[in-house]
Amino acid sequence: MTERPSSGAEHFLPLVAPKLELVEEELRRTFRSSIRTINEVGAHMLEGGGKRLRPALLLLVADMLGYRGQKDVSYATIVELIHTATLVHDDIIDEAAIRRGRTSINYRWGNHLTVLIGDLLYTKAMDRALEEGSLEILQLLSSVTLRMTEGEILGLEQNGRADLSLDEYFEIVGRKTAALFGASCSIPAYLVESPEGWSKALFDYGFNLGVCFQLIDDLLDYTSSSEVLGKPALSDLKEGKLTLPLILALPKASEAEKTIIQRVAADHSFGKTKPPEVLAIVEKYDALEQSREIAREYAARAGAALMGLPDSPSRQALEFALDFVISRNH
Amino acid sequence: MTERPSSGAEHFLPLVAPKLELVEEELRRTFRSSIRTINEVGAHMLEGGGKRLRPALLLLVADMLGYRGQKDVSYATIVELIHTATLVHDDIIDEAAIRRGRTSINYRWGNHLTVLIGDLLYTKAMDRALEEGSLEILQLLSSVTLRMTEGEILGLEQNGRADLSLDEYFEIVGRKTAALFGASCSIPAYLVESPEGWSKALFDYGFNLGVCFQLIDDLLDYTSSSEVLGKPALSDLKEGKLTLPLILALPKASEAEKTIIQRVAADHSFGKTKPPEVLAIVEKYDALEQSREIAREYAARAGAALMGLPDSPSRQALEFALDFVISRNH
Repeated sequence: MTERPSSGAEHFLPLVAPKLELVEEELRRTFRSSIRTINEVGAHMLEGGGKRLRPALLLLVADMLGYRGQKDVSYATIVELIHTATLVHDDIIDEAAIRRGRTSINYRWGNHLTVLIGDLLYTKAMDRALEEGSLEILQLLSSVTLRMTEGEILGLEQNGRADLSLDEYFEIVGRKTAALFGASCSIPAYLVESPEGWSKALFDYGFNLGVCFQLIDDLLDYTSSSEVLGKPALSDLKEGKLTLPLILALPKASEAEKTIIQRVAADHSFGKTKPPEVLAIVEKYDALEQSREIAREYAARAGAALMGLPDSPSRQALEFALDFVISRNH
Repeated sequence: MTERPSSGAEHFLPLVAPKLELVEEELRRTFRSSIRTINEVGAHMLEGGGKRLRPALLLLVADMLGYRGQKDVSYATIVELIHTATLVHDDIIDEAAIRRGRTSINYRWGNHLTVLIGDLLYTKAMDRALEEGSLEILQLLSSVTLRMTEGEILGLEQNGRADLSLDEYFEIVGRKTAALFGASCSIPAYLVESPEGWSKALFDYGFNLGVCFQLIDDLLDYTSSSEVLGKPALSDLKEGKLTLPLILALPKASEAEKTIIQRVAADHSFGKTKPPEVLAIVEKYDALEQSREIAREYAARAGAALMGLPDSPSRQALEFALDFVISRNH
């Protein structure tokens, strides 16, 4: 039921595979309830799996810092619960019918229940973090959740705008995606006696990896077919979201090309425009390769942030995680 | 902009009016943001006002216990934020277009933003509670939020069922409404050195008052016109929700009468049935008066829970609050 996806993550997962199994067990326990609906939705969600990238990173960092307790399993579960809660509420936001190749909760159970399941996940995450009792980590998680929610609101505010600036784009990426990666990677620094500066370095590693992850995600929306990704290609633009490739291409584009992009973004529909036309525009201005190059720069920054940390198999795995994120194809 | 509604609450509000003003100020501060949408929605919500019943009760209890600091203002704000978050997400759940006599956020800004504003309110509440730093109160708030969310899910699961039992009904009322009243009233016990048993007595007071509040709310759906309540009468049944009057009437009803009720609950629509027909059924079996009597019993239990607490003007105000809840007409 909780089979790991063969995502290439096996190259850095072995080190933390036993603890990742415990995370799955904790996730299953989260959905055990006397309320039938919670069990049903939980089973559906767990079958859907997921990369469990944030938990894996948190566990690797904990291992690198020599942490030997079980709190890392709890916090790995907590960050995955928060991440899942945002996905669930995002299904309402995006009117997405497909998520991770399966029907979304929203599509199957309706908006009503979807909202509540997201609320349940957030609350369970907070409840679990309260059990662990560290106010410092609670504050970190709470401030990251706030940044994420504000980022989503900002994203909605700017939806449909074809004149999104690079700064605006990176602000949204930072809030919506990178902040939780940063928190996931820095949490273990609070579990051990660690030198000053390590928690910041680890946050930087996670944050930059998170930006890189999102840039690749945005690229995959251009380069992947629907079968591999489990969602329609060019779906971002269709949802009114401008991402890096188009933001880079638009200043160079002709007026006619700009009009095509503006129309799709504003209409939330391709209408007479066909996705290959948009793809042709970003390719014409080399925006896909340029985006990939920027993603590589963020990966390099993440790698640099690791430099002052103790060398070990887990640090090597964290370095490998960057290659994994850069080269993933789904 | 934040004019108090003339709700009758003025009889017990003077004691806490200055601190309630500080709560309004804190609520306003919650919506101050560099993100335009958050300011706009915040202004809309604050204009809408609200009874601020949970904050008023929390502040009265704090006064009764001799608390002289400012933490009660923070926690009063926090419980109102949690309450408002559930209302906001409930607007999605109920597809309610009207709330508190104004258009709901959902109606004006769509489901997408409504979900995020609710998330923002929950997160701000938690963030604020973390600033105050009491793990005990955080745990109380978290467990109550969990109970509320589960109660909402349970309510959705049982939506449309005309065979809801009294136990099932009271379980939902306890979770969805009464638990937060209980928490609001017991929080001040954690702010002072209070004898063992007081926090439980105060929770009992708040919980029973909360049940009473909900029963009267359910009754008002039968007895109020749309103008006074600011929402359509008999809207609960139309939304598939059976409440106490019908649960009491149904076992005595004829098969023809049962069919009428079942049809409206299952269809989420009155269709050929007219609201007066349903009203006639509950009146025929004296279910409105019986419901009011049960509400009075809960008020009496709440009053009894106050007995061991120090007599003072604020305790008298808490007793008066019970009359206010029983006799309110909107």
